[in-house]
Amino acid sequence: MHKLLKAIDAKKAPVVVGLDPQPAFIPAKLLDAAQSEFGPTLEAAAEAYYRFNTAIMDAVSDIVPAVKPQVAMYEQLGVPGMEAYRKTCNYASSKGLVVIGDIKRGDIGSTSGAYAVAHLGRVSFFGKEFEPFGEDIVTVNPYLGTDGVKPFVDVAREHDKGIFVLVKTSNPSSGEFQDVMAGDSTIYERVGAMVEKWGSDNIKDGYSDVGAVVGATYPEIGERMRAAMPHTVILVPGYGAQGGTGADIRVFFDKDGRGAIVNSSRGIIAAYKNEKYASFGEDGFADAARAATEDMIKDITGNL
Amino acid sequence: MHKLLKAIDAKKAPVVVGLDPQPAFIPAKLLDAAQSEFGPTLEAAAEAYYRFNTAIMDAVSDIVPAVKPQVAMYEQLGVPGMEAYRKTCNYASSKGLVVIGDIKRGDIGSTSGAYAVAHLGRVSFFGKEFEPFGEDIVTVNPYLGTDGVKPFVDVAREHDKGIFVLVKTSNPSSGEFQDVMAGDSTIYERVGAMVEKWGSDNIKDGYSDVGAVVGATYPEIGERMRAAMPHTVILVPGYGAQGGTGADIRVFFDKDGRGAIVNSSRGIIAAYKNEKYASFGEDGFADAARAATEDMIKDITGNL
Repeated sequence: MHKLLKAIDAKKAPVVVGLDPQPAFIPAKLLDAAQSEFGPTLEAAAEAYYRFNTAIMDAVSDIVPAVKPQVAMYEQLGVPGMEAYRKTCNYASSKGLVVIGDIKRGDIGSTSGAYAVAHLGRVSFFGKEFEPFGEDIVTVNPYLGTDGVKPFVDVAREHDKGIFVLVKTSNPSSGEFQDVMAGDSTIYERVGAMVEKWGSDNIKDGYSDVGAVVGATYPEIGERMRAAMPHTVILVPGYGAQGGTGADIRVFFDKDGRGAIVNSSRGIIAAYKNEKYASFGEDGFADAARAATEDMIKDITGNL
Repeated sequence: MHKLLKAIDAKKAPVVVGLDPQPAFIPAKLLDAAQSEFGPTLEAAAEAYYRFNTAIMDAVSDIVPAVKPQVAMYEQLGVPGMEAYRKTCNYASSKGLVVIGDIKRGDIGSTSGAYAVAHLGRVSFFGKEFEPFGEDIVTVNPYLGTDGVKPFVDVAREHDKGIFVLVKTSNPSSGEFQDVMAGDSTIYERVGAMVEKWGSDNIKDGYSDVGAVVGATYPEIGERMRAAMPHTVILVPGYGAQGGTGADIRVFFDKDGRGAIVNSSRGIIAAYKNEKYASFGEDGFADAARAATEDMIKDITGNL
């Protein structure tokens, strides 16, 4: 998490590119090339996803601190998709990008421990150690409470990594359970208080290694949770395609303009399909992504 | 879900075997054999998991209706682990077992849609359809609300499959958020009410295709939720190693002794390490698993 904050400062860009490939985003040329190499298979689709990702990362790695692959998009391609996810994480690391794995896992203690090892740690077999997926930070679902979250915190700490716990998600029905008032606080406020507590043992430069997810689509909640979680870095999804704007997002940052990072996925990786960047054409999808990223950085930092 | 209920009736066994392999459970012979074939690699570890699972399934497939692989245990072995998970699901199907994938996924709508396709549906590429993992039923985390759960319901319905939504989990700290009182009901009761609602469009023989997870470790809650969710099949984890007993579990069933299925993982697959079944020895791990399964079925049905 401190590596992430430093990278944000160095690049002056509190922005993360969401690598959430979907079939409709992948240029036909990439799909055709993969199909002619691997046949009409999931391996070909997964390889096309991976090549799409590497082109985007090559185009933006000097201007953003991090990428956030959404594992569901890869899981949808089965085992070959998981290999494309793993390779994407590794390629991102090789480009100096912080990898935020958007995995939203969470289970009972021993099972969360297995997920934590899979994504943030190393597993031992035959007297050797293996790094199964190799992310730097992952998102975690808090529904099971402390014993479902603590194994992630422990493994993250052992390997100098971090987590973002879902507090208030960006989707329309997030309020159904998260906004329920219990006494004088909502469920998301209770989760936020626990996030502060889980992170309280490891605060450096004002921020802990346990972050929170709060959606850009709820700026008034963002403002309240920024104040309620003073040691918590906030990952802000929902900018762009989901409706959040740069002006909305100021409130997620601290008074120094730090402590938050804003994600955009579709708005960047599928920018070439947007009228504004259509002149790049399908072949220029990576350059369109870079232009959209530059515009997003301006929009966010211009409001800080 | 109706296939599951029929299989429970046919085998007179409301019991599911949790296939949650861990390094310590795998007999040395299996690990050694896999290592000599695949070297000291994650591929070898994953293959040993898969062979362990097939031996257990061969030993119990005539007496239980279903297995429940916990994907975290496979994810911990990286991509080869996910291949072992996929193969385990497929082998279970080939033995006529209902496959309950314990994946506890949940995200914003479009992302939940991708997970649903990965595990319950089919994905289209190059004019062909692929079944990425091939479970029959999966567990779903409700923290994101209706738009995070509905894509699972939709995909399940399209393919005649089902889901179990986490209502009250079996772990010690499940109460932190799930038990919070809001007005006159807890969060888990609110989730339970939504489970009834999500399933209300597709009820056959009294039960819908949207089930609920309620832990054996909280029998008083099980009794209350059985009454509150009359059309909901309950998946009951936490029997055995986590502390739930056959007497505790009666309350999770309806008056006809139907509408619930109880999981045991460690207590069955690692039975040979338990004093009671130690005479089977390490080589007899599968027979020990069968003996433990028979005892569990007696314990559960004897209390119905």
